[in-house]
Amino acid sequence: MAYELYDWPTIQGRGEFVRLALEEADADYVDVAREAGRPAMMRILEDPDRPRPPFACPFLKDGDLMVGQTAAILLQLGPKLGLVGVDPADRLWTHQIQLTIADMVAEAHDTHHPVALSLTYEKQTPEAARRAGDFCRNRIPEFLAWFEHLLGRAGGSHLVSGQLSYADLSLFQLVDGLLYAFPKTMGGVLGASRQVARLHDAVRQRPRIATYLASPRRLPFNEQGIFRRYPEFEA
Amino acid sequence: MAYELYDWPTIQGRGEFVRLALEEADADYVDVAREAGRPAMMRILEDPDRPRPPFACPFLKDGDLMVGQTAAILLQLGPKLGLVGVDPADRLWTHQIQLTIADMVAEAHDTHHPVALSLTYEKQTPEAARRAGDFCRNRIPEFLAWFEHLLGRAGGSHLVSGQLSYADLSLFQLVDGLLYAFPKTMGGVLGASRQVARLHDAVRQRPRIATYLASPRRLPFNEQGIFRRYPEFEA
Repeated sequence: MAYELYDWPTIQGRGEFVRLALEEADADYVDVAREAGRPAMMRILEDPDRPRPPFACPFLKDGDLMVGQTAAILLQLGPKLGLVGVDPADRLWTHQIQLTIADMVAEAHDTHHPVALSLTYEKQTPEAARRAGDFCRNRIPEFLAWFEHLLGRAGGSHLVSGQLSYADLSLFQLVDGLLYAFPKTMGGVLGASRQVARLHDAVRQRPRIATYLASPRRLPFNEQGIFRRYPEFEA
Repeated sequence: MAYELYDWPTIQGRGEFVRLALEEADADYVDVAREAGRPAMMRILEDPDRPRPPFACPFLKDGDLMVGQTAAILLQLGPKLGLVGVDPADRLWTHQIQLTIADMVAEAHDTHHPVALSLTYEKQTPEAARRAGDFCRNRIPEFLAWFEHLLGRAGGSHLVSGQLSYADLSLFQLVDGLLYAFPKTMGGVLGASRQVARLHDAVRQRPRIATYLASPRRLPFNEQGIFRRYPEFEA
C-alpha cells in the first residue's frame, strides 16, 4: 500500500525531509494535499474523533499507523526504506542528528517569524532583522561546524557509519534551504565546511534525487516556506 | 552501572525531563555537572576527538552509549525504566507527544530569547514582550487544547494507553514550568483543560515524584532557566 504524506501543498515545508527519503528509496507514496487539496489534510487534523491526531503537519499514513513530527516519521520510515543502519546505536545516533537538524530548521524558520506564527513577516520585520543577523553571525557557523566535525570523524562522505542515511538527505535539504535563504553567509561558511559542501553536492547528484529535483514534484523555494530569501537579512 | 546525566548545573533545564523519568523509576544516576562541576560536562562537549558528540546538553551516558537530545534520551530510557508501553505503535506515539512537548518548550524559551541565545533577556525585552504576548494568547491555548484532547480520547488519566509513560511526566514538567512563568494565563487556560490540570496534580502526588520535588535535587525555577517569570509578560 502506498504511503500517504500530508503537508502544506504549496511549499516544500518540513514534509520535504520525508519526501527526499521516499524519493531516494523509490517508495510508492501519495502526496495527499498536493493531489487532493488541502481540505483532505485539514479533515484529519481537525477530526474531533481521532484518538491520536498529530498536532500539526507533516504527518504520514503508513497502513493503519499515522505518525506526525518529521523526525518521528523518519524514525519510523528509516528501517523500512533502508535509510538507516541496523545497529540500534546507529539508529539512535541518526535520530539524534535528525533532531538537531530539526532544531536548526526551527531557528531558520524563526528568522522570519521571531514574534508570532500567527502574524505575517511584514508585521515583524524589525525583530526578524535582528534574529536573522544573529542566526547568520552565530548559529549558522555553530551548527555547520558540528556537522563538519561529524563528517570528519565519520570519514567524510556520510554522517553515520559510512553509509547513506536519512540524516544525510536531511542535511542536504537543510544546506539547500540555507543556501537559498542566506547565500552570502553560506558562501563564506561552506568554504570552512568543505565536507558539508561535498555531502550537499553528492546527495544532489544521486540519480533518484537528481531526477526528483528536476521534476515538478520539487517545488521551488519561496517566501511562504521555511527558508525565505529576504535580501535585507544579509544587507 | 549508574546513568550519568549531564546538563547545566544551576537550572532545571531540559535535563529535568530526563531527571523526572529517572526519579520516578528510582534509577541509579549521577547528575554529573551538579556533582563534579560544569567543566566535567564541557570537557565532553568540547572534546575534538569524540566521534559522536552531542551538539548541546542535556546528554546521558548509559554505559558505552552517549545520547543527546532530550526526546532521544527518553526514547532510549523509556523501555529500560518501564516508562513506555511495549507496543511499537505506543512507543512511537509516546515519542511523537514528547517531540511536541519539546516544540512547546522551545517556544516557551524563546519568549525571553526571541532574537538571540547569545544575548541576555535585557538586550531583547521589546521583542520578548511581543513574543510572550502571542505565546499567551495563541500558543498556550493551542498546545493545551491538544493535550486535553489526547487525555480525553485516552480516558483521562494518562496520555498513552492508560498507563504511566515518560510523556506524562514531561507534560507535568511543562505545565509546572508554564504555571511558574505565566500564572495568570495558565490559571485561565487550565480551567478549560481540566484533564491536563488533573494529570499535573496526579504526577506531583506520585510518591517518588513528591519525594523528589521536596528534595534539594529539585532546583527552584529561576530567571536563568527555560521558564522565567517576568511580570511584564502578563501585565
